[in-house]
Amino acid sequence: MSAAYETGLDKTPANFVPLSPLSFLRRAARVWPGRTALIDGDRRQSWAETYARCRRLASALERRGIGRNDTVAVLAPNVPAMYEAHFGVPLTGAVLNAINTRLDAATVAFILDHGEADALLVTRDCAALAAEALKRCERRPLVVAVDEGAEGDLAVLPASIGYEAFLDEGDPAHPFRLPADEWDAIALSYTSGTTGNPKGVVTHHRGAYLNALGNVLAWDLGHHPVYLWTLPMFHCNGWCFPWTLAALGGTSVCLPKVEAGAIYDAIADHGADHFCAAPTVLGMVLGAGPAEKRPFGHTVRVMTAAAPPPASVLAAMEDAGFQVTHVYGLTEVYGPDVVCAWQPEWNDEPLAERARLKARQGVPYAVQEDATVLDPQTMRPVPADGETLGEVMMRGNITMKGYLKNEAATREAFAGGWFHTGDLGVMHPDGYIQLRDRSKDIIISGGENISSIEVEDALYGHPAVQEVAVVARPDDKWGETPCAFITLKPGREDTTAEDIVAFARENLARFKVPRTVVFGPLPKTSTGKVQKFQLRERARAL
Amino acid sequence: MSAAYETGLDKTPANFVPLSPLSFLRRAARVWPGRTALIDGDRRQSWAETYARCRRLASALERRGIGRNDTVAVLAPNVPAMYEAHFGVPLTGAVLNAINTRLDAATVAFILDHGEADALLVTRDCAALAAEALKRCERRPLVVAVDEGAEGDLAVLPASIGYEAFLDEGDPAHPFRLPADEWDAIALSYTSGTTGNPKGVVTHHRGAYLNALGNVLAWDLGHHPVYLWTLPMFHCNGWCFPWTLAALGGTSVCLPKVEAGAIYDAIADHGADHFCAAPTVLGMVLGAGPAEKRPFGHTVRVMTAAAPPPASVLAAMEDAGFQVTHVYGLTEVYGPDVVCAWQPEWNDEPLAERARLKARQGVPYAVQEDATVLDPQTMRPVPADGETLGEVMMRGNITMKGYLKNEAATREAFAGGWFHTGDLGVMHPDGYIQLRDRSKDIIISGGENISSIEVEDALYGHPAVQEVAVVARPDDKWGETPCAFITLKPGREDTTAEDIVAFARENLARFKVPRTVVFGPLPKTSTGKVQKFQLRERARAL
Repeated sequence: MSAAYETGLDKTPANFVPLSPLSFLRRAARVWPGRTALIDGDRRQSWAETYARCRRLASALERRGIGRNDTVAVLAPNVPAMYEAHFGVPLTGAVLNAINTRLDAATVAFILDHGEADALLVTRDCAALAAEALKRCERRPLVVAVDEGAEGDLAVLPASIGYEAFLDEGDPAHPFRLPADEWDAIALSYTSGTTGNPKGVVTHHRGAYLNALGNVLAWDLGHHPVYLWTLPMFHCNGWCFPWTLAALGGTSVCLPKVEAGAIYDAIADHGADHFCAAPTVLGMVLGAGPAEKRPFGHTVRVMTAAAPPPASVLAAMEDAGFQVTHVYGLTEVYGPDVVCAWQPEWNDEPLAERARLKARQGVPYAVQEDATVLDPQTMRPVPADGETLGEVMMRGNITMKGYLKNEAATREAFAGGWFHTGDLGVMHPDGYIQLRDRSKDIIISGGENISSIEVEDALYGHPAVQEVAVVARPDDKWGETPCAFITLKPGREDTTAEDIVAFARENLARFKVPRTVVFGPLPKTSTGKVQKFQLRERARAL
Repeated sequence: MSAAYETGLDKTPANFVPLSPLSFLRRAARVWPGRTALIDGDRRQSWAETYARCRRLASALERRGIGRNDTVAVLAPNVPAMYEAHFGVPLTGAVLNAINTRLDAATVAFILDHGEADALLVTRDCAALAAEALKRCERRPLVVAVDEGAEGDLAVLPASIGYEAFLDEGDPAHPFRLPADEWDAIALSYTSGTTGNPKGVVTHHRGAYLNALGNVLAWDLGHHPVYLWTLPMFHCNGWCFPWTLAALGGTSVCLPKVEAGAIYDAIADHGADHFCAAPTVLGMVLGAGPAEKRPFGHTVRVMTAAAPPPASVLAAMEDAGFQVTHVYGLTEVYGPDVVCAWQPEWNDEPLAERARLKARQGVPYAVQEDATVLDPQTMRPVPADGETLGEVMMRGNITMKGYLKNEAATREAFAGGWFHTGDLGVMHPDGYIQLRDRSKDIIISGGENISSIEVEDALYGHPAVQEVAVVARPDDKWGETPCAFITLKPGREDTTAEDIVAFARENLARFKVPRTVVFGPLPKTSTGKVQKFQLRERARAL
């Protein structure tokens, strides 16, 4: 060992800068100043303009005393100001706290207090929620009223300054400054726990930078994608895509409301060629009526998470010109950090086999060190047999700093040197992870385990089914029985419960056939995940 | 500012690992175990095999006492062992010193001593050079004889062990270990200085990781490229492409000798779709005879550096099915860190304009913080007018740690917080850098400055010219005059100096027309750069 490699070879301003996705914005403004960064209705905004507005925002915040490790909360759908906040806020060293706009006022108040919000940006449609939350919380953040978003009345807010007036206070030539340390916090995102108070996931500049690049590799993204914002940016910072798009000179197409017609319009009118969405959004796209559908000549690539795409949905998407990539992750790992990496030879498989392969969650992102299935007791890998159940665990640079002001939860989450997802899964012989039901999603009927996912997959094969979720319903005789909640396709509303049960009998073991079938829309989270706990309550009350 | 973001949110094994391109190899073996990592003649080697062999190599080195901050030198062309060394050596914490195989024995001896080589891997064709260098140097490294490469006799080496026998000493399940610190040295590469002893550029794991990803973004690389090794891996570790290919599950096609026929064979037989090469290699590809050329149905993408591709070469390459990306860099920045990022709207320009745009070096890689043109006296940016000359300077994470055992040179190179390239250039209004002649490449004739690049560009327009290099020839009357060294295309050997001069008169100002024209092959470095200093000596002797 030679000491020569340790001598006179230190970090200097020439050869070391903290990793931060902010660097991508500065570069985008240099390399693609005139290219469109944002489309929102009739509005077009270039990278040069976006950079100047983000610097104005940073400058205005700093002039109000906001800086390193302060918190700037945002209540907004996918509007330009939300995109700008992803750069303008961390440019000051402050932490972006994008809040789920579908939470109740009490929870928002809890978040503003717990996250110690120093400023709060609010759009029209979130004004009423913000006003109510501000009444209930102790913090008195600077309120910035953003005249963007769907309908609503900004006047209900307490004393506030308009977003454009606020930007006018700022300097468009505000110095570009990287964080002091790449481990500095960049964002705070509260997980929507179904019990107790939400936990605040703290992420850092280094991880955001790496996952911005990780998305490029996971999705084979080329330059200048036209990215449609179906996924809310308040969900894990839009899986880091605001920063990915700056790295690639891509265009963000805003879509304040996720509706089939608006999605087809963005594809046909703006050439949108990429979006991220829960499978339920895929169902919405496929179920669009003739008045909403629009023809388009390019392939649209879709990244989907939350539940594996059923074979029927996959086939229909392919026929309709969409190419689906299946990913998996959590807020704690910056959004997806596992991808069902597609092996070229799988293209030769029949559809059912392709769907089976694609339903698996997959392998770690290139920028995540590992994602595997461990026995949580022994912390040893389960056999790679596709059958032995264990807990999915991850580790590496796109894992959160931890939970804000919750050292016990952080320690627990990181016990044994791995992030414990709480999700159950198996490891296949080829190294791909597949989730199995969380224990509470397993239906135990007459002592037999029934996978709700398996029943859902079967029911998706029925031509009238647009969406389905299966949960346990308490039963005196069997303990539990499967209960199916189904949304029918437009024009197929005459389908009966008997039709569904008859179909299930042909495709499932007898004990797995739903005893109860309920038609109607499914309750969902803001990110399109079906809220099974609500369905379980409904099933219990039937 | 809240202290909350600093408390209980520290680095742990769950959320932090040192950045290292070694992680890409481990992942490649998991995600694509059966895919071909290496093709060398009839030999095919999968990622699983490659990973096992690299771990064997690491294990065998460690069993011989080689570890962190030790130096493992390699004298080899682009053979599988060279690729394996890029992973097996740093897996032990040791530093890979890939030595230019075209250096003389005295220089190799200097490098072995200066770099403190603990082991030396040598292929057949490098055995004589290694044997001679080992006689001249003081170090007594462990010699590992690799039975790969072009012809040569391994028996001339002093006491050595065969590479395969050495691997057999190692454990294919050797534990995968990342470096202790991402700032640890990964490679040592000597710059081929034309005067004095070469300097040893030390790079680190962090930079190698980032530039491996930087290549993906600069070149819009998708998964599974079939990469042809025209560029020597001993040149800045093949611009970090060994590591890029592991991140993408790409295939390396070895090409021990860079010849037109072999290049076309690799394209036609193995589907090679990417390679890196100096423009002179492009000339070789275009000038191939009918016996060497092979038809192919896919686009082959070529990354070229060292000199901008002339319009005529660019047009011919496009016609022949090649798509050229122009990059620029130095050993000190891990290979290229500047790319002529192509703006989609440029595709509508006529060829001459496309060539003019592509001849510019461009903008920094996404993973390099900055590359710009500064006045070296004031360290302020020159006006972005495309005319004012300054020095190209760079800074960011893909900049070397410094020069080994040369603190003075390191300090000088990093003065003022920037890496000084020594190259002169201008900044265009659109933010693109363009190199101008180094001062010694400018020809001063009758008090007028003549750009040798401009004269070369003009002469490339002559249909018989395959390659041209222009240098200054001392002249009693004018001080200097342009002297052109030209290689003619096959079948056009009847072209005369008078033809060339007549053509130059039509396309250049009178004082720029070469006074002297010399036909014949051009002397080149191992990377295909024309050695102008040799031509200047020849011109002086004419």
